Amino acid sequence: MVRFFVSRETLAAEAPELTGENARHAEVLRLKIGETVLLCDGQGEEAVCTVSGAAGGAFRLAVQCRRESASEAAVKVSVYMAFPKGDKLEHVIQKATELGAYEIVTFPSARCVSRPDEKSIRRKLERWQKIAASAAEQSGRGRVPAVLALPGYAQALSRAAQAEKALLFYENEQAHTLKMALSAGNFSSVSLMTGPEGGLTGEEVTQASAAGLEICTLGKRILRCETAPLCALSAVMYQAGEF
Amino acid sequence: MVRFFVSRETLAAEAPELTGENARHAEVLRLKIGETVLLCDGQGEEAVCTVSGAAGGAFRLAVQCRRESASEAAVKVSVYMAFPKGDKLEHVIQKATELGAYEIVTFPSARCVSRPDEKSIRRKLERWQKIAASAAEQSGRGRVPAVLALPGYAQALSRAAQAEKALLFYENEQAHTLKMALSAGNFSSVSLMTGPEGGLTGEEVTQASAAGLEICTLGKRILRCETAPLCALSAVMYQAGEF
Repeated sequence: MVRFFVSRETLAAEAPELTGENARHAEVLRLKIGETVLLCDGQGEEAVCTVSGAAGGAFRLAVQCRRESASEAAVKVSVYMAFPKGDKLEHVIQKATELGAYEIVTFPSARCVSRPDEKSIRRKLERWQKIAASAAEQSGRGRVPAVLALPGYAQALSRAAQAEKALLFYENEQAHTLKMALSAGNFSSVSLMTGPEGGLTGEEVTQASAAGLEICTLGKRILRCETAPLCALSAVMYQAGEF
Repeated sequence: MVRFFVSRETLAAEAPELTGENARHAEVLRLKIGETVLLCDGQGEEAVCTVSGAAGGAFRLAVQCRRESASEAAVKVSVYMAFPKGDKLEHVIQKATELGAYEIVTFPSARCVSRPDEKSIRRKLERWQKIAASAAEQSGRGRVPAVLALPGYAQALSRAAQAEKALLFYENEQAHTLKMALSAGNFSSVSLMTGPEGGLTGEEVTQASAAGLEICTLGKRILRCETAPLCALSAVMYQAGEF
């Protein structure tokens, strides 16, 4: 079933229409009257619709049923990644979206080489959000994860700590595994925090621990800063019964 | 501890030497007499050594102890990935090496867009093996995973089927999860097979099943061809107790 992302208002309409970019896409797909499509508001709500008419470059739809998105993970996983160099964050946003992340949060830490200023962050956020939207569409998600940039490490810690499981991965931690952290009780929200290329400092890890984050290892091999969050996210989704 | 990859012969020597590229690297690091380094043969054997002398651009070492690499996974995971487009295989080789894969095997399948000929494969294999070696070094592995290219899908199936768990991920499988496949009994070797951009054909999946592979899902979201093997590998390593 072809899916289209539309605004909440369009989804809520009694007879929604595909217009603009969506209508052009529908034309390319040669959508016919009677065909079934899926409308998503990108926030977890969907409507199964049939095409009831086409006129003036727009497609009229009749709603068959409304439902919560069937492809969203039950567990809400927030990926907290310190600003990496180059386009690594774009890579992580795309992959974390496919893997079902609820949101992706970036923040500065002591050893971040890349320190974009506020103006450049605003511009980048727009681009990052587009990458998330496009990956959500490609992977068949019903929700586009939000991409956020926080101004400081302390803010990242206190926000991350609000999840039922708040975990930070540190290459010098050797005993406490992700499995141990996830085996203790159920969880419906998880924060996964990872450092930049040079890692987090010992002091930052102490602060995280004081803020209530559990310090975990991702095993004996050193993962690159863009590999660690995706490895942890895959394991959490697996543990949570997603596949 | 700084690690150097050397030949099996060098590692086996009573008084190994760092020469050539390794010696130049050691000079850059300003290695001093009495310092401890780790020699690895890239095949799972290591020696803890101290620098005993430097002359003529080479460093003499004294072996303190020999051991099996401490950073290799106990489970041998072979990643079977159909030829993807562009440089996606290079990405997967790098990441799968970090994540601890035992080997990476590529092969053609019906919907592969990229079909390199034998000569081009030979050239590429050299490059792929270098990527694996460099990722092994960076991630602190004691073994460089082999990168192999098989001539056909049938060969890939029969080789993959030799593992204790041989799994194929298919986007149309909805019931049989990776967790179900891994929960049934212990395993010391696993094959993880994934298709190219356009996926595997139904016929190919039937052939895989006949060859003894278990058909599994990686969840409700459609993963890109370069995301699926790394997601599955992360989950297998997690399940096997690696982190």
